Amino acid sequence: MSELRQDPTTYDWVIIAKERAKRPHEFMKHEPTASSLLSYSKECPFCPGNEDRTPGATAVYGPPEKWEIRVVPNKYSALTPGGDTQREEWKLFRKIQGYGMHEVVIETPLHNVCIPFMDDSHVEKLIAVYRDRYNELKKDPNIKVIIIFKNHGRAAGTSLEHPHTQIVASPIVPPFIRRRYEIATQHFDNTGHCLYCDILYNEFEAGERIIMDNKFFVALHPFASHYPFETWIMPKVHSSSFGKITDIEITDLARLLKEILLKQHVSLDNPDYNLIIHTSPVDDEHKTYYLWHIQIIPRLTLAAGFELGSGIYINTAVPEETAAFMREFRLKEQSTA
Amino acid sequence: MSELRQDPTTYDWVIIAKERAKRPHEFMKHEPTASSLLSYSKECPFCPGNEDRTPGATAVYGPPEKWEIRVVPNKYSALTPGGDTQREEWKLFRKIQGYGMHEVVIETPLHNVCIPFMDDSHVEKLIAVYRDRYNELKKDPNIKVIIIFKNHGRAAGTSLEHPHTQIVASPIVPPFIRRRYEIATQHFDNTGHCLYCDILYNEFEAGERIIMDNKFFVALHPFASHYPFETWIMPKVHSSSFGKITDIEITDLARLLKEILLKQHVSLDNPDYNLIIHTSPVDDEHKTYYLWHIQIIPRLTLAAGFELGSGIYINTAVPEETAAFMREFRLKEQSTA
Repeated sequence: MSELRQDPTTYDWVIIAKERAKRPHEFMKHEPTASSLLSYSKECPFCPGNEDRTPGATAVYGPPEKWEIRVVPNKYSALTPGGDTQREEWKLFRKIQGYGMHEVVIETPLHNVCIPFMDDSHVEKLIAVYRDRYNELKKDPNIKVIIIFKNHGRAAGTSLEHPHTQIVASPIVPPFIRRRYEIATQHFDNTGHCLYCDILYNEFEAGERIIMDNKFFVALHPFASHYPFETWIMPKVHSSSFGKITDIEITDLARLLKEILLKQHVSLDNPDYNLIIHTSPVDDEHKTYYLWHIQIIPRLTLAAGFELGSGIYINTAVPEETAAFMREFRLKEQSTA
Repeated sequence: MSELRQDPTTYDWVIIAKERAKRPHEFMKHEPTASSLLSYSKECPFCPGNEDRTPGATAVYGPPEKWEIRVVPNKYSALTPGGDTQREEWKLFRKIQGYGMHEVVIETPLHNVCIPFMDDSHVEKLIAVYRDRYNELKKDPNIKVIIIFKNHGRAAGTSLEHPHTQIVASPIVPPFIRRRYEIATQHFDNTGHCLYCDILYNEFEAGERIIMDNKFFVALHPFASHYPFETWIMPKVHSSSFGKITDIEITDLARLLKEILLKQHVSLDNPDYNLIIHTSPVDDEHKTYYLWHIQIIPRLTLAAGFELGSGIYINTAVPEETAAFMREFRLKEQSTA
């Protein structure tokens, strides 16, 4: 019999299809991807030498003649600066201008080196760039929420192979984010604790969904995981805003993120995935109710009519099993070459 | 500049990417699908002669020796009868047994005849079967919500070609549905009107997003359409529950649904799509706050990290343009053959 589990952070329900569940190794791609990408592609707008094919850089890191990380406005920005954020209403229809910022972080000059294969120090720099951009973008008083995310592979919604991250600064707090924040606030009002920190204590006590941890971070598959191999990386030291991450925490996060993504890359054969940094709305980040965290969603299954019509997700993997699989998965030296 | 529009039924925001928007015809598939399916497939578990490859039928319509529509339990049910709906809690983790029903409506004995190509009378019978099953399933007092949906094509989450619809009877009201219902209730408390009926009045006044209507139903592309070519079919006569649809209304719905799906099939070259019947929770269907309606979501784009991390959807089509395209699209006789 399947099981309905409630996500304590959203109150959403997930059907864990225990009998139908595939075993972890069954999620590996049937046709392994050839690692055929070269380190440079003449056609790629993000490769060095093609800098004129993106809008002018907002920030460049590393020596100017040989940049290491480059931040540019998205050429096809969903939101753009200018205009205002006044609501316009006609009857029941409300809208505002598409005010905001939409940036692309070109993670490396190398076309074929994604996070698991970068040097530790480069991943640290990359996370520090995320932090820098977050703190820069939030200076605009119209900006209410900043979403940092990665789309890796076609099934995750990108057609550009070159490793990149996107940052959207939004003038509204969407209900999706407001709701998570309100549930955390209610938990704080009831208990005096951060909901996510309490979940983390519970997860350590249960043990079975933890994959690995280091001094400042933990990786786990959540209890009411919506997707097979959905992974959360959570700080052990309470902090509501990603923008406040310290350099010493970044060192730990870089190592954990690299290892989690490497395990995922090798064990599931480079699955397409989305990575999202969840953090509190800008106006609330001085409060202690929320815990920023990273969510990684491998795109191994599709949301169908049931999910789109009910918001209930059917997960055909059991998070305790996928977490054990990842925890026990050993990386061989040759796999990482 | 893009535009942020708020969905008045969920308060979700959608970015209508006006400048990036593709023109309606650009959503047509690049490689037209060959209509190569035969009317019978030996391997198909839903084709006549293979009835032993599904669980025993729950209901059979038409003469027993030559069924017209067949309802069976889903062989891979997400929820199953038996057990109970007691919450079990350990710390912050709450779950219940996967109690419920999950049925498949095999829409026709013919492997290759989907709704737009069925006789009007067959589509009427099919909708009447949905109604029958809805009213049968709701008799179980543990059932709180019934979701009727279709997955058409691989990108919509199905691998079975034979035309079929699914019905899930759920023991919980998920927040996704509760939230829609509460927003409608709040509107009723404020105004004394049904939110959806008010939206319909507004849409008729605006005119630009209506595709077609008949005596009892309207088809339109909603103001804050989340997906390119997202279509709603709404009753003109207020009714909170799909289970109460009358025979005379079914006649009109069948014609409208057929024509909308045929226009979609021909103009976009048989896109994969999901169809969902939204209706009020079972315990609330005697109240007048909600309007049941059908949502059709062509799967032309993918939700990526931004959508999954913010709940804000980027729609690369302008609903006024896609509605005009569909309104003006003329079906030629040969296209429907």
